[in-house]
Amino acid sequence: MSPKPSNMPLNPDPAGSDPALAELERLRASIDNIDAALIHMLAERFRCTQEVGELKARAHLPPADPSRETRQIERLRQLARDAHLDPDFAEKFLAFVIREVIRHHEAIAANARKASEA
Amino acid sequence: MSPKPSNMPLNPDPAGSDPALAELERLRASIDNIDAALIHMLAERFRCTQEVGELKARAHLPPADPSRETRQIERLRQLARDAHLDPDFAEKFLAFVIREVIRHHEAIAANARKASEA
Repeated sequence: MSPKPSNMPLNPDPAGSDPALAELERLRASIDNIDAALIHMLAERFRCTQEVGELKARAHLPPADPSRETRQIERLRQLARDAHLDPDFAEKFLAFVIREVIRHHEAIAANARKASEA
Repeated sequence: MSPKPSNMPLNPDPAGSDPALAELERLRASIDNIDAALIHMLAERFRCTQEVGELKARAHLPPADPSRETRQIERLRQLARDAHLDPDFAEKFLAFVIREVIRHHEAIAANARKASEA
């Protein structure tokens, strides 16, 4: 018999003889579903923050809002505790997302300034 | 009339006279709902990866799996493109989550080693 080519999937037969690998495959299928949900929720979140950015640029509001951010952090830490998720991780996650949002808002504001100066 | 105290909420009357602030409030309510969904999806994801970690420790599988990670990155980049989300952001997001997962798995493996040596 010829050897299996190296580009074959690692687990072509996930429900095969090894129960540990079958269980790993089952858990990974759930993780992949959750990741697809996370990506779509993040896409929807950025649609909202894109609108917020355009609104703030039109109304000449500052891109960042520290008092709103403080309230968001406290709320997400509490939601995380209720869901048995590490609240520090939830806070780091929000900071990670907000950094990206502020980057978008600054770009929107810069474009709005350029358009009004043109 | 006395001035409003400085510790009052920024938007005590969100549907009040300023349409820009009312719109901002509406968008922020959607963002808050999405954040609650994200936190709960992340909590569920860590429940799955916690099980993966325990399984890997029992079956003496390595905590990290670079080939699985490569496939996850490519899949999430494609999902992000389909959802009009920046694929680079999706990749950074996955890396952020996986760093936390590997930290958990290493802790689980260390505990399992300690238990088997005790």
